[in-house]
Amino acid sequence: MRGWHSLNVAERRMHGPSVAVSTVAFSLAPPHRPADTPQGLWVPLVQRTRPPYKGAWALPGGPTQWDKTLTQTARETLVAATQAEPNYLEQLYAFGSVERSAQAERTVTIAYWAQYRESDFESAARIDDPHVAWFPTSRLPELAFDHAEIIHTGIQRLQRRASQTFVAHRFLERHFTLAQLREVHEVIVDKRVDPANFRRQALSSGEIVETGVTQAGAKHRPAKFYRFADNNARQD
Amino acid sequence: MRGWHSLNVAERRMHGPSVAVSTVAFSLAPPHRPADTPQGLWVPLVQRTRPPYKGAWALPGGPTQWDKTLTQTARETLVAATQAEPNYLEQLYAFGSVERSAQAERTVTIAYWAQYRESDFESAARIDDPHVAWFPTSRLPELAFDHAEIIHTGIQRLQRRASQTFVAHRFLERHFTLAQLREVHEVIVDKRVDPANFRRQALSSGEIVETGVTQAGAKHRPAKFYRFADNNARQD
Repeated sequence: MRGWHSLNVAERRMHGPSVAVSTVAFSLAPPHRPADTPQGLWVPLVQRTRPPYKGAWALPGGPTQWDKTLTQTARETLVAATQAEPNYLEQLYAFGSVERSAQAERTVTIAYWAQYRESDFESAARIDDPHVAWFPTSRLPELAFDHAEIIHTGIQRLQRRASQTFVAHRFLERHFTLAQLREVHEVIVDKRVDPANFRRQALSSGEIVETGVTQAGAKHRPAKFYRFADNNARQD
Repeated sequence: MRGWHSLNVAERRMHGPSVAVSTVAFSLAPPHRPADTPQGLWVPLVQRTRPPYKGAWALPGGPTQWDKTLTQTARETLVAATQAEPNYLEQLYAFGSVERSAQAERTVTIAYWAQYRESDFESAARIDDPHVAWFPTSRLPELAFDHAEIIHTGIQRLQRRASQTFVAHRFLERHFTLAQLREVHEVIVDKRVDPANFRRQALSSGEIVETGVTQAGAKHRPAKFYRFADNNARQD
Protein backbone atom coordinates (compact mmCIF):
# COMPACT_ATOMS: atom_id res chain seq x y z
CA MET A 1 0.00 0.00 0.00
CA ARG A 2 1.50 3.24 -1.11
CA GLY A 3 2.86 5.49 1.55
CA TRP A 4 2.45 2.90 4.24
CA HIS A 5 6.05 3.05 5.36
CA SER A 6 5.72 6.74 6.12
CA LEU A 7 3.00 6.11 8.73
CA ASN A 8 3.72 5.89 12.44
CA VAL A 9 2.68 2.94 14.61
CA ALA A 10 -0.70 4.37 15.65
CA GLU A 11 -1.51 5.24 12.07
CA ARG A 12 -0.51 1.79 10.89
CA ARG A 13 -2.94 0.22 13.34
CA MET A 14 -5.76 2.35 11.95
CA HIS A 15 -4.92 1.23 8.45
CA GLY A 16 -6.73 -1.74 7.00
CA PRO A 17 -4.78 -4.83 6.03
CA SER A 18 -3.56 -5.23 2.48
CA VAL A 19 -5.14 -7.94 0.37
CA ALA A 20 -3.18 -10.42 -1.71
CA VAL A 21 -4.08 -13.48 -3.74
CA SER A 22 -1.88 -16.62 -3.71
CA THR A 23 -2.40 -19.87 -5.57
CA VAL A 24 -1.15 -23.35 -4.77
CA ALA A 25 -1.23 -25.24 -8.09
CA PHE A 26 -0.69 -28.98 -8.27
CA SER A 27 0.61 -31.15 -11.04
CA LEU A 28 1.90 -34.72 -11.03
CA ALA A 29 5.22 -33.69 -12.54
CA PRO A 30 6.94 -30.47 -13.57
CA PRO A 31 6.38 -29.24 -17.16
CA HIS A 32 8.47 -30.81 -19.93
CA ARG A 33 9.79 -33.45 -17.54
CA PRO A 34 11.93 -36.34 -18.68
CA ALA A 35 9.66 -39.34 -19.18
CA ASP A 36 11.15 -41.25 -16.25
CA THR A 37 10.46 -38.60 -13.59
CA PRO A 38 8.58 -40.33 -10.76
CA GLN A 39 5.10 -38.92 -10.14
CA GLY A 40 4.26 -36.95 -7.05
CA LEU A 41 2.57 -33.67 -6.16
CA TRP A 42 4.51 -30.72 -7.55
CA VAL A 43 3.86 -27.01 -7.04
CA PRO A 44 5.25 -23.93 -8.83
CA LEU A 45 7.02 -21.36 -6.66
CA VAL A 46 8.51 -17.92 -7.26
CA GLN A 47 11.70 -16.80 -5.52
CA ARG A 48 11.44 -13.42 -3.84
CA THR A 49 13.99 -10.85 -4.94
CA ARG A 50 12.99 -8.20 -2.41
CA PRO A 51 12.37 -8.04 1.34
CA PRO A 52 10.52 -9.26 3.28
CA TYR A 53 11.65 -12.88 2.92
CA LYS A 54 14.18 -12.00 0.21
CA GLY A 55 15.58 -15.22 -1.27
CA ALA A 56 12.74 -17.38 0.08
CA TRP A 57 10.24 -19.01 -2.25
CA ALA A 58 6.59 -17.99 -2.41
CA LEU A 59 3.39 -19.07 -4.12
CA PRO A 60 2.47 -17.30 -7.36
CA GLY A 61 0.22 -14.36 -6.63
CA GLY A 62 0.14 -10.69 -5.95
CA PRO A 63 -1.89 -7.81 -4.65
CA THR A 64 -5.50 -7.41 -5.69
CA GLN A 65 -6.02 -4.99 -8.52
CA TRP A 66 -8.64 -2.33 -8.81
CA ASP A 67 -10.51 -3.69 -11.80
CA LYS A 68 -9.98 -7.43 -11.47
CA THR A 69 -11.91 -10.03 -9.53
CA LEU A 70 -10.05 -12.17 -7.00
CA THR A 71 -10.32 -15.16 -9.34
CA GLN A 72 -8.95 -13.17 -12.29
CA THR A 73 -6.00 -12.07 -10.19
CA ALA A 74 -5.35 -15.66 -9.10
CA ARG A 75 -5.46 -16.96 -12.67
CA GLU A 76 -3.35 -14.21 -14.21
CA THR A 77 -0.60 -14.31 -11.59
CA LEU A 78 -0.47 -18.11 -11.82
CA VAL A 79 -0.27 -18.10 -15.61
CA ALA A 80 2.41 -15.40 -15.50
CA ALA A 81 4.55 -17.70 -13.36
CA THR A 82 3.88 -21.05 -15.04
CA GLN A 83 3.19 -19.94 -18.65
CA ALA A 84 0.28 -22.40 -18.65
CA GLU A 85 -3.47 -22.23 -17.99
CA PRO A 86 -4.64 -24.59 -15.25
CA ASN A 87 -7.66 -26.77 -16.03
CA TYR A 88 -9.13 -26.16 -12.57
CA LEU A 89 -9.07 -23.19 -10.20
CA GLU A 90 -11.09 -22.69 -7.03
CA GLN A 91 -10.93 -20.53 -3.95
CA LEU A 92 -9.28 -22.38 -1.07
CA TYR A 93 -9.43 -20.22 2.06
CA ALA A 94 -8.84 -16.66 3.26
CA PHE A 95 -5.83 -16.49 5.54
CA GLY A 96 -5.68 -13.44 7.78
CA SER A 97 -2.71 -13.95 10.00
CA VAL A 98 -2.35 -11.32 12.70
CA GLU A 99 1.00 -9.61 12.50
CA ARG A 100 1.67 -8.52 16.04
CA SER A 101 4.68 -6.46 15.10
CA ALA A 102 3.74 -2.91 14.24
CA GLN A 103 6.61 -2.99 11.75
CA ALA A 104 4.81 -5.48 9.55
CA GLU A 105 1.85 -4.57 7.46
CA ARG A 106 -0.95 -7.03 8.03
CA THR A 107 -1.94 -8.96 4.95
CA VAL A 108 -5.09 -10.94 4.27
CA THR A 109 -4.34 -13.60 1.67
CA ILE A 110 -7.14 -15.06 -0.41
CA ALA A 111 -5.70 -18.44 -1.37
CA TYR A 112 -6.76 -20.45 -4.42
CA TRP A 113 -5.91 -23.97 -5.49
CA ALA A 114 -5.45 -25.21 -9.03
CA GLN A 115 -4.76 -28.40 -10.95
CA TYR A 116 -2.68 -29.04 -14.07
CA ARG A 117 -2.54 -32.07 -16.31
CA GLU A 118 0.41 -32.82 -18.57
CA SER A 119 -1.24 -31.54 -21.74
CA ASP A 120 -1.87 -28.15 -20.09
CA PHE A 121 1.86 -27.57 -20.52
CA GLU A 122 2.08 -28.56 -24.18
CA SER A 123 1.58 -25.11 -25.62
CA ALA A 124 3.35 -23.40 -22.73
CA ALA A 125 6.66 -21.67 -23.18
CA ARG A 126 9.58 -23.10 -21.25
CA ILE A 127 10.20 -21.08 -18.12
CA ASP A 128 13.60 -19.42 -18.42
CA ASP A 129 13.22 -17.27 -15.30
CA PRO A 130 15.62 -18.63 -12.65
CA HIS A 131 13.27 -17.30 -9.97
CA VAL A 132 10.44 -19.62 -11.01
CA ALA A 133 10.64 -23.37 -10.39
CA TRP A 134 8.52 -26.43 -9.64
CA PHE A 135 9.13 -28.31 -6.40
CA PRO A 136 7.79 -31.63 -5.12
CA THR A 137 5.64 -31.05 -2.01
CA SER A 138 7.80 -33.64 -0.24
CA ARG A 139 10.92 -31.45 -0.64
CA LEU A 140 9.88 -27.83 -0.41
CA PRO A 141 12.41 -25.02 0.04
CA GLU A 142 12.15 -22.36 2.73
CA LEU A 143 8.85 -20.57 2.17
CA ALA A 144 7.91 -16.92 2.64
CA PHE A 145 5.00 -15.67 4.79
CA ASP A 146 2.45 -18.34 5.75
CA HIS A 147 2.77 -20.08 2.40
CA ALA A 148 3.78 -23.39 3.98
CA GLU A 149 0.43 -23.35 5.77
CA ILE A 150 -1.39 -22.53 2.54
CA ILE A 151 0.28 -25.44 0.72
CA HIS A 152 -0.58 -27.75 3.62
CA THR A 153 -4.22 -26.63 3.49
CA GLY A 154 -4.25 -27.14 -0.28
CA ILE A 155 -2.97 -30.71 0.05
CA GLN A 156 -5.60 -31.44 2.70
CA ARG A 157 -8.33 -30.07 0.44
CA LEU A 158 -7.09 -32.16 -2.46
CA GLN A 159 -6.97 -35.30 -0.30
CA ARG A 160 -10.41 -34.72 1.18
CA ARG A 161 -11.92 -34.17 -2.24
CA ALA A 162 -10.20 -37.28 -3.52
CA SER A 163 -11.87 -39.31 -0.80
CA GLN A 164 -15.31 -37.78 -1.44
CA THR A 165 -15.24 -37.87 -5.18
CA PHE A 166 -12.69 -38.02 -7.94
CA VAL A 167 -10.37 -35.15 -8.66
CA ALA A 168 -7.83 -37.48 -10.24
CA HIS A 169 -9.17 -36.92 -13.74
CA ARG A 170 -8.03 -33.31 -13.68
CA PHE A 171 -4.49 -34.63 -13.63
CA LEU A 172 -5.22 -37.09 -16.46
CA GLU A 173 -5.93 -36.61 -20.11
CA ARG A 174 -9.47 -36.84 -21.41
CA HIS A 175 -9.39 -40.63 -21.76
CA PHE A 176 -7.77 -42.92 -19.22
CA THR A 177 -7.76 -46.47 -17.96
CA LEU A 178 -8.91 -47.48 -14.49
CA ALA A 179 -5.30 -48.38 -13.66
CA GLN A 180 -4.18 -44.85 -14.57
CA LEU A 181 -6.98 -43.37 -12.49
CA ARG A 182 -6.02 -45.51 -9.51
CA GLU A 183 -2.33 -44.64 -9.81
CA VAL A 184 -3.10 -40.92 -9.72
CA HIS A 185 -5.47 -41.43 -6.81
CA GLU A 186 -2.65 -43.18 -4.97
CA VAL A 187 -0.34 -40.21 -5.54
CA ILE A 188 -2.94 -37.83 -4.12
CA VAL A 189 -3.89 -39.80 -1.03
CA ASP A 190 -0.27 -40.91 -0.66
CA LYS A 191 -1.01 -44.59 -0.06
CA ARG A 192 -1.63 -47.82 -1.92
CA VAL A 193 -5.24 -48.60 -2.82
CA ASP A 194 -6.65 -52.08 -3.40
CA PRO A 195 -7.19 -52.34 -7.20
CA ALA A 196 -10.39 -54.41 -6.98
CA ASN A 197 -12.00 -52.12 -4.41
CA PHE A 198 -10.99 -49.05 -6.33
CA ARG A 199 -12.36 -50.50 -9.55
CA ARG A 200 -15.71 -51.33 -7.93
CA GLN A 201 -16.04 -47.88 -6.33
CA ALA A 202 -15.06 -46.04 -9.48
CA LEU A 203 -17.50 -47.96 -11.66
CA SER A 204 -20.38 -47.52 -9.20
CA SER A 205 -19.72 -43.81 -8.64
CA GLY A 206 -21.60 -42.70 -11.71
CA GLU A 207 -18.76 -40.29 -12.36
CA ILE A 208 -16.97 -42.15 -15.14
CA VAL A 209 -18.30 -43.55 -18.39
CA GLU A 210 -16.81 -45.92 -20.97
CA THR A 211 -15.53 -44.35 -24.16
CA GLY A 212 -15.97 -47.55 -26.19
CA VAL A 213 -12.25 -47.48 -26.99
CA THR A 214 -9.79 -50.05 -25.65
CA GLN A 215 -6.05 -49.82 -25.19
CA ALA A 216 -4.18 -50.73 -28.37
CA GLY A 217 -1.44 -53.35 -28.38
CA ALA A 218 -2.62 -55.36 -25.37
CA LYS A 219 -2.89 -59.09 -26.00
CA HIS A 220 -5.16 -60.24 -23.21
CA ARG A 221 -8.18 -58.32 -21.88
CA PRO A 222 -7.15 -54.93 -23.25
CA ALA A 223 -7.96 -52.15 -20.79
CA LYS A 224 -10.96 -49.99 -21.53
CA PHE A 225 -10.66 -46.25 -21.76
CA TYR A 226 -12.98 -44.12 -19.64
CA ARG A 227 -13.80 -40.46 -19.43
CA PHE A 228 -15.47 -38.40 -16.77
CA ALA A 229 -19.16 -37.67 -16.92
CA ASP A 230 -19.81 -33.97 -17.14
CA ASN A 231 -20.28 -32.70 -13.63
CA ASN A 232 -20.16 -29.22 -12.35
CA ALA A 233 -17.28 -28.56 -10.03
CA ARG A 234 -18.43 -29.03 -6.48
CA GLN A 235 -17.90 -25.79 -4.66
CA ASP A 236 -18.20 -27.07 -1.12
CA MET B 1 -10.12 3.44 5.58
CA ARG B 2 -9.16 6.74 7.09
CA GLY B 3 -8.62 9.61 4.72
CA TRP B 4 -9.88 7.65 1.76
CA HIS B 5 -12.49 10.23 0.82
CA SER B 6 -9.82 12.88 0.44
CA LEU B 7 -8.09 10.93 -2.34
CA ASN B 8 -8.61 11.63 -6.00
CA VAL B 9 -9.66 8.97 -8.51
CA ALA B 10 -6.13 7.98 -9.54
CA GLU B 11 -5.09 7.72 -5.92
CA ARG B 12 -8.12 5.61 -5.07
CA ARG B 13 -7.20 3.13 -7.78
CA MET B 14 -3.74 2.74 -6.32
CA HIS B 15 -5.19 2.06 -2.91
CA GLY B 16 -5.76 -1.52 -1.83
CA PRO B 17 -9.29 -2.68 -1.08
CA SER B 18 -10.59 -2.55 2.45
CA VAL B 19 -11.27 -5.83 4.20
CA ALA B 20 -14.46 -6.59 6.10
CA VAL B 21 -15.88 -9.68 7.75
CA SER B 22 -19.60 -10.54 7.49
CA THR B 23 -21.44 -13.50 8.97
CA VAL B 24 -24.66 -15.15 7.87
CA ALA B 25 -25.97 -16.96 10.96
CA PHE B 26 -28.89 -19.40 10.77
CA SER B 27 -31.40 -20.46 13.38
CA LEU B 28 -34.74 -22.21 13.06
CA ALA B 29 -36.56 -19.40 14.83
CA PRO B 30 -35.72 -16.01 16.29
CA PRO B 31 -34.62 -15.86 19.95
CA HIS B 32 -37.33 -15.95 22.64
CA ARG B 33 -39.97 -16.73 20.03
CA PRO B 34 -43.54 -17.54 20.95
CA ALA B 35 -43.90 -21.32 21.05
CA ASP B 36 -46.15 -21.43 17.98
CA THR B 37 -43.76 -19.63 15.59
CA PRO B 38 -43.41 -21.85 12.51
CA GLN B 39 -39.87 -23.08 11.87
CA GLY B 40 -37.82 -21.83 8.97
CA LEU B 41 -34.36 -20.46 8.35
CA TRP B 42 -33.89 -17.14 10.14
CA VAL B 43 -30.91 -14.78 10.00
CA PRO B 44 -29.97 -11.78 12.16
CA LEU B 45 -29.49 -8.46 10.37
CA VAL B 46 -28.33 -5.00 11.38
CA GLN B 47 -29.89 -1.85 9.92
CA ARG B 48 -27.39 0.65 8.60
CA THR B 49 -27.61 4.13 10.09
CA ARG B 50 -25.01 5.69 7.80
CA PRO B 51 -24.31 5.82 4.07
CA PRO B 52 -23.69 3.91 1.94
CA TYR B 53 -26.96 1.97 1.96
CA LYS B 54 -28.36 3.99 4.87
CA GLY B 55 -31.59 2.37 6.07
CA ALA B 56 -30.87 -0.97 4.37
CA TRP B 57 -30.18 -4.10 6.39
CA ALA B 58 -26.78 -5.78 6.48
CA LEU B 59 -25.18 -8.89 7.90
CA PRO B 60 -23.43 -8.55 11.26
CA GLY B 61 -19.77 -7.81 10.74
CA GLY B 62 -17.25 -5.07 10.45
CA PRO B 63 -13.78 -4.12 9.36
CA THR B 64 -10.88 -6.35 10.28
CA GLN B 65 -9.00 -5.20 13.32
CA TRP B 66 -5.31 -4.97 13.75
CA ASP B 67 -4.87 -7.55 16.50
CA LYS B 68 -7.74 -9.96 15.80
CA THR B 69 -7.96 -12.95 13.52
CA LEU B 70 -10.67 -13.02 10.86
CA THR B 71 -12.54 -15.67 12.87
CA GLN B 72 -12.35 -13.62 16.07
CA THR B 73 -13.73 -10.62 14.22
CA ALA B 74 -16.56 -12.72 12.80
CA ARG B 75 -17.47 -14.17 16.19
CA GLU B 76 -17.28 -10.89 18.11
CA THR B 77 -19.31 -8.84 15.64
CA LEU B 78 -21.94 -11.60 15.46
CA VAL B 79 -22.22 -11.89 19.26
CA ALA B 80 -22.41 -8.10 19.55
CA ALA B 81 -25.47 -8.14 17.28
CA THR B 82 -27.25 -11.25 18.58
CA GLN B 83 -26.12 -11.29 22.23
CA ALA B 84 -25.59 -15.04 21.85
CA GLU B 85 -22.66 -17.33 21.03
CA PRO B 86 -23.25 -19.55 17.99
CA ASN B 87 -22.49 -23.25 18.39
CA TYR B 88 -20.86 -23.38 14.97
CA LEU B 89 -18.84 -20.89 12.93
CA GLU B 90 -16.89 -21.52 9.74
CA GLN B 91 -15.47 -19.48 6.91
CA LEU B 92 -17.81 -19.44 3.91
CA TYR B 93 -16.14 -17.61 1.04
CA ALA B 94 -14.17 -14.46 0.25
CA PHE B 95 -16.23 -12.08 -1.86
CA GLY B 96 -14.23 -9.50 -3.77
CA SER B 97 -16.69 -7.69 -5.94
CA VAL B 98 -15.12 -5.22 -8.33
CA GLU B 99 -16.56 -1.76 -7.85
CA ARG B 100 -16.21 -0.15 -11.23
CA SER B 101 -17.18 3.26 -9.95
CA ALA B 102 -14.19 5.20 -8.74
CA GLN B 103 -16.53 6.75 -6.16
CA ALA B 104 -16.85 3.47 -4.31
CA GLU B 105 -14.08 2.02 -2.24
CA ARG B 106 -13.55 -1.59 -3.17
CA THR B 107 -14.18 -4.00 -0.32
CA VAL B 108 -13.15 -7.61 0.01
CA THR B 109 -15.57 -9.35 2.35
CA ILE B 110 -14.52 -12.52 4.13
CA ALA B 111 -17.88 -14.17 4.81
CA TYR B 112 -18.53 -16.70 7.57
CA TRP B 113 -21.54 -18.86 8.30
CA ALA B 114 -22.85 -19.85 11.71
CA GLN B 115 -25.54 -21.97 13.31
CA TYR B 116 -27.64 -21.40 16.45
CA ARG B 117 -29.83 -23.80 18.36
CA GLU B 118 -32.62 -22.65 20.68
CA SER B 119 -30.64 -23.16 23.88
CA ASP B 120 -27.86 -20.90 22.57
CA PHE B 121 -30.27 -18.03 23.23
CA GLU B 122 -31.20 -19.01 26.80
CA SER B 123 -28.57 -16.95 28.55
CA ALA B 124 -28.67 -14.19 25.94
CA ALA B 125 -30.02 -10.75 26.75
CA ARG B 126 -33.08 -9.67 24.82
CA ILE B 127 -32.07 -7.40 21.95
CA ASP B 128 -33.52 -3.94 22.57
CA ASP B 129 -31.69 -2.28 19.69
CA PRO B 130 -34.28 -1.38 17.01
CA HIS B 131 -31.54 -1.67 14.39
CA VAL B 132 -31.02 -5.38 15.04
CA ALA B 133 -33.66 -7.94 14.02
CA TRP B 134 -34.08 -11.52 12.86
CA PHE B 135 -35.67 -12.15 9.47
CA PRO B 136 -36.85 -15.36 7.78
CA THR B 137 -34.77 -16.01 4.66
CA SER B 138 -38.04 -16.31 2.73
CA ARG B 139 -38.90 -12.66 3.50
CA LEU B 140 -35.70 -10.65 3.60
CA PRO B 141 -35.71 -6.84 3.59
CA GLU B 142 -33.65 -4.74 1.19
CA LEU B 143 -30.03 -5.69 1.77
CA ALA B 144 -26.88 -3.57 1.64
CA PHE B 145 -23.81 -4.33 -0.50
CA ASP B 146 -23.63 -7.89 -1.87
CA HIS B 147 -25.15 -9.33 1.30
CA ALA B 148 -28.05 -10.93 -0.57
CA GLU B 149 -25.46 -12.93 -2.52
CA ILE B 150 -23.68 -13.90 0.70
CA ILE B 151 -26.92 -15.15 2.28
CA HIS B 152 -27.71 -17.11 -0.89
CA THR B 153 -24.26 -18.70 -0.81
CA GLY B 154 -24.72 -19.52 2.89
CA ILE B 155 -28.03 -21.27 2.24
CA GLN B 156 -26.46 -23.25 -0.59
CA ARG B 157 -23.58 -24.32 1.67
CA LEU B 158 -26.02 -25.37 4.37
CA GLN B 159 -28.12 -27.35 1.92
CA ARG B 160 -25.12 -29.03 0.35
CA ARG B 161 -23.74 -30.01 3.73
CA ALA B 162 -27.14 -31.32 4.74
CA SER B 163 -27.15 -33.62 1.74
CA GLN B 164 -23.59 -34.84 2.34
CA THR B 165 -23.83 -35.27 6.07
CA PHE B 166 -25.95 -34.01 8.91
CA VAL B 167 -25.76 -30.43 10.04
CA ALA B 168 -29.27 -30.63 11.48
CA HIS B 169 -28.03 -31.53 14.94
CA ARG B 170 -26.47 -28.10 15.34
CA PHE B 171 -29.99 -26.70 15.32
CA LEU B 172 -31.18 -29.32 17.83
CA GLU B 173 -30.45 -29.85 21.49
CA ARG B 174 -28.04 -32.56 22.58
CA HIS B 175 -30.69 -35.32 22.50
CA PHE B 176 -33.33 -35.63 19.82
CA THR B 177 -35.66 -38.10 18.17
CA LEU B 178 -35.35 -39.21 14.55
CA ALA B 179 -38.59 -37.35 13.81
CA GLN B 180 -37.10 -34.12 15.15
CA LEU B 181 -33.96 -34.68 13.11
CA ARG B 182 -35.97 -35.26 9.96
CA GLU B 183 -38.15 -32.19 10.52
CA VAL B 184 -35.08 -29.96 10.82
CA HIS B 185 -33.55 -31.60 7.77
CA GLU B 186 -36.75 -30.78 5.87
CA VAL B 187 -36.49 -27.12 6.89
CA ILE B 188 -32.92 -26.95 5.62
CA VAL B 189 -33.41 -28.67 2.29
CA ASP B 190 -36.84 -27.04 1.96
CA LYS B 191 -38.72 -30.17 0.94
CA ARG B 192 -40.51 -33.16 2.41
CA VAL B 193 -38.39 -36.24 3.02
CA ASP B 194 -39.67 -39.80 3.15
CA PRO B 195 -39.62 -40.80 6.86
CA ALA B 196 -38.61 -44.43 6.25
CA ASN B 197 -35.79 -43.52 3.86
CA PHE B 198 -34.55 -40.81 6.18
CA ARG B 199 -34.62 -43.19 9.15
CA ARG B 200 -32.63 -45.83 7.28
CA GLN B 201 -30.03 -43.31 6.05
CA ALA B 202 -29.65 -41.66 9.42
CA LEU B 203 -29.20 -44.95 11.26
CA SER B 204 -26.70 -46.27 8.72
CA SER B 205 -24.66 -43.04 8.61
CA GLY B 206 -22.65 -43.85 11.70
CA GLU B 207 -23.16 -40.24 12.73
CA ILE B 208 -25.85 -40.73 15.38
CA VAL B 209 -25.90 -43.04 18.39
CA GLU B 210 -28.67 -44.09 20.76
CA THR B 211 -28.72 -42.45 24.17
CA GLY B 212 -30.61 -45.33 25.81
CA VAL B 213 -33.35 -42.89 26.79
CA THR B 214 -36.83 -42.97 25.29
CA GLN B 215 -39.46 -40.26 25.06
CA ALA B 216 -41.58 -40.07 28.21
CA GLY B 217 -45.37 -40.16 28.08
CA ALA B 218 -45.71 -42.05 24.80
CA LYS B 219 -48.04 -45.05 24.98
CA HIS B 220 -47.02 -47.10 21.97
CA ARG B 221 -43.46 -47.54 20.73
CA PRO B 222 -41.98 -44.52 22.52
CA ALA B 223 -39.42 -42.73 20.32
CA LYS B 224 -35.77 -43.25 21.14
CA PHE B 225 -33.51 -40.32 21.80
CA TYR B 226 -30.29 -40.07 19.83
CA ARG B 227 -27.23 -37.89 19.99
CA PHE B 228 -24.52 -37.17 17.49
CA ALA B 229 -21.31 -39.13 17.52
CA ASP B 230 -18.34 -36.90 18.17
CA ASN B 231 -16.98 -35.89 14.81
CA ASN B 232 -14.70 -33.10 13.93
CA ALA B 233 -16.34 -30.45 11.86
CA ARG B 234 -15.76 -31.19 8.20
CA GLN B 235 -13.96 -28.28 6.72
CA ASP B 236 -14.48 -29.08 3.10
